[in-house]
Amino acid sequence: MRDEFYMQLALDKAWEYQGLTYPNPAVGAVVTLNDNILAIEAHQKAGTSHAEVLALLSAYETLSNTSIDFDPQDAQKAHAFLLALPKDFFTQCTIYVTLEPCSHEGKTPSCASLLQSLTLCKVVIGIRDPIEGHDGGIQKLANASIGVLEEECQALIEPFLIWQTRAFVLFKLAQTTNGRIGGGYLSSKASLTHVHQLREVCDTLLIGGNTVREDRPTLDCRFIEAQAPNVKIYAKEDNFDRDIPLFRIENRDVEIINRLDFLDEPSFVLVEGGEGMLNALKEKIDWMLIYQTPKLSTNNLTYNTTMNLHFLHQSKKDIDLMIWSKQIGH
Amino acid sequence: MRDEFYMQLALDKAWEYQGLTYPNPAVGAVVTLNDNILAIEAHQKAGTSHAEVLALLSAYETLSNTSIDFDPQDAQKAHAFLLALPKDFFTQCTIYVTLEPCSHEGKTPSCASLLQSLTLCKVVIGIRDPIEGHDGGIQKLANASIGVLEEECQALIEPFLIWQTRAFVLFKLAQTTNGRIGGGYLSSKASLTHVHQLREVCDTLLIGGNTVREDRPTLDCRFIEAQAPNVKIYAKEDNFDRDIPLFRIENRDVEIINRLDFLDEPSFVLVEGGEGMLNALKEKIDWMLIYQTPKLSTNNLTYNTTMNLHFLHQSKKDIDLMIWSKQIGH
Repeated sequence: MRDEFYMQLALDKAWEYQGLTYPNPAVGAVVTLNDNILAIEAHQKAGTSHAEVLALLSAYETLSNTSIDFDPQDAQKAHAFLLALPKDFFTQCTIYVTLEPCSHEGKTPSCASLLQSLTLCKVVIGIRDPIEGHDGGIQKLANASIGVLEEECQALIEPFLIWQTRAFVLFKLAQTTNGRIGGGYLSSKASLTHVHQLREVCDTLLIGGNTVREDRPTLDCRFIEAQAPNVKIYAKEDNFDRDIPLFRIENRDVEIINRLDFLDEPSFVLVEGGEGMLNALKEKIDWMLIYQTPKLSTNNLTYNTTMNLHFLHQSKKDIDLMIWSKQIGH
Repeated sequence: MRDEFYMQLALDKAWEYQGLTYPNPAVGAVVTLNDNILAIEAHQKAGTSHAEVLALLSAYETLSNTSIDFDPQDAQKAHAFLLALPKDFFTQCTIYVTLEPCSHEGKTPSCASLLQSLTLCKVVIGIRDPIEGHDGGIQKLANASIGVLEEECQALIEPFLIWQTRAFVLFKLAQTTNGRIGGGYLSSKASLTHVHQLREVCDTLLIGGNTVREDRPTLDCRFIEAQAPNVKIYAKEDNFDRDIPLFRIENRDVEIINRLDFLDEPSFVLVEGGEGMLNALKEKIDWMLIYQTPKLSTNNLTYNTTMNLHFLHQSKKDIDLMIWSKQIGH
């Protein structure tokens, strides 16, 4: 029960960065000392510190009551710092991590080797790393156990597993609580910012021709001042007015496509659209991300389709509800 | 931060029994020892043990590694048991409680007096009890502090505050994720069971004439084998077929009404209906309770209305999402 409680905290934290860690998996970690929670952290962005490292740095700050003087997201510095601590610094601590610590040296040093050197009292792992060559971290760890909230830890990394072999297709939708999708911006600033973060990390933003013609969107990442994503417009014909803002952004590719073969390639594809795209893409949609605004509306734009979902995670995004779900039974 | 973390756990637990504690407020409590969580409990039903008592009993079981041999919901026995423990049993413990412990002796002994006798190390309280005569609990407690997650603790007891002076009107709706409300039972067994629990405790189940005519519902509490609620049918005319199941349940009052004056009386009124009732009752609705099923549907029954909501709490109910919200700005 206790292990599950801490693992759930690690999971909830990891969900905050779901998708944003692409091409890495979302991972969360919690550090405790005598059942005292010292740190709850998650991996945030590929190329930066892993969840375990961030949690250990945060636990260090809590235990020493001091602040580190470097960027905790700098994995090289973070590993070096942690390895230079007195050998027994974390020996009474337990770390909970949703995914087996990485055994290989990539853009960042190996977390399994780090944990081995720090000799924590206990390492509790959600699930084994399913990627050959990434697994084996647990063999380095004498006090490691595996298998807590396995189903939840597995769901957390499903996008990661999918984008190993083909496109992970995330369909994003903003709606009122009674399912209306029209009437201007529906979402809170926090939700819109989150969409821009997803746009920044995805390989392709896929959108339907009708949306481009009717809404004339920009589809950039201005709320986070990041590079706009490459766009593919799924349409039968290329008859688009090139004055539509999305065509006029520098350093972005816009392609008009009438086939979906590109979804066979490993990638992260974010889809934004309404009923038309939902029906056109139906067979290809892996997950839905719904920003549900706390409002009932008489706007008549809705979406009419059938799909069976499984709710994976829900949390508040400012005043909105952010609901992650996966399509099942298709 | 730490106080807020434990208070949030107490809040989440209390929300599991929102409405079901009528006429009492929903209250949650957490007991810790050196930041070790010993117990997370909530008040479940009027006339049974309060949240603090259940949390202390559960903490006792954790600390002593034994089980109590009486019904923990029996408040008299529970108080007597806790008062008979060695005087220093809980002196290192902290209790977090969302609402000021009651100072008066009602159906159950005073929790403030109990905590005073047990001399806990710290009593952390969300908000003061707003009811005159119920407050003052904190004065008995030397080590008590007040004011953690006040807004959230206040939202938790809003129904309780409303039903002191007039009817608290909770509108219940079951819908697909795209806002469709037709097509047979939409909710999981767990959600349906929860509706039956709410029906059992409410004073009145209010329903529209059209729903009675068209759906011919039973509106009982068969999933929990409890007494069916009294029903008021809001309709212009009494032209109902008395063979409709809801009329044929023993020991239940069914009244056909064309006015809503009864909402001026302190009570708990659960409303079940669709678009018609939502629009007819609009000005009177305090909270919405939406059971959202993980499904997109092409069923054409939806609900067309405008309302601004504020999401209060969301959790899974088996496969469904259960979303509590309040109407704002009306």
